[in-house]
Amino acid sequence: MRKKDQKRKNSLLQGFGAAIRNRRIEQNMTQEELGEAAQLHRTYITDVESGLRNLSFLTMERLADALDSQLADLIAEAEATEI
Amino acid sequence: MRKKDQKRKNSLLQGFGAAIRNRRIEQNMTQEELGEAAQLHRTYITDVESGLRNLSFLTMERLADALDSQLADLIAEAEATEI
Repeated sequence: MRKKDQKRKNSLLQGFGAAIRNRRIEQNMTQEELGEAAQLHRTYITDVESGLRNLSFLTMERLADALDSQLADLIAEAEATEI
Repeated sequence: MRKKDQKRKNSLLQGFGAAIRNRRIEQNMTQEELGEAAQLHRTYITDVESGLRNLSFLTMERLADALDSQLADLIAEAEATEI
């Protein structure tokens, strides 16, 4: 993978993680509560919010659902915050 | 997984597959050409378009890039076509 691609990859995952974290905090949820709602472990939520996970489509959709959000909006935020 | 969730899952993946197929055809690309542009095998593209693959975020992004599209738009189409 070229350095530029690697950077882009990190940037996208981090942008998505930031979008998830922002929504979660807006809704006064802890990582644990979000994890329960999305049937994911709290440590997985931590990793996602840090941009360390390349999630699958259906897992992203489950997180969006748990946050009463459209996944498309969260992705748009991730794409917009790309460096 | 409950039946309702299973249905939803299939519906989302199929919606995404249809969005990919539509964009590809609009751009007069074959599955083979899209595969080359996104560094994926032609048979993988076939599966994605049929809703048989739960792709990762970065693979979805690569497909969107290869189609000169925003991933958020493709996801919005998938979410809108949910039954």
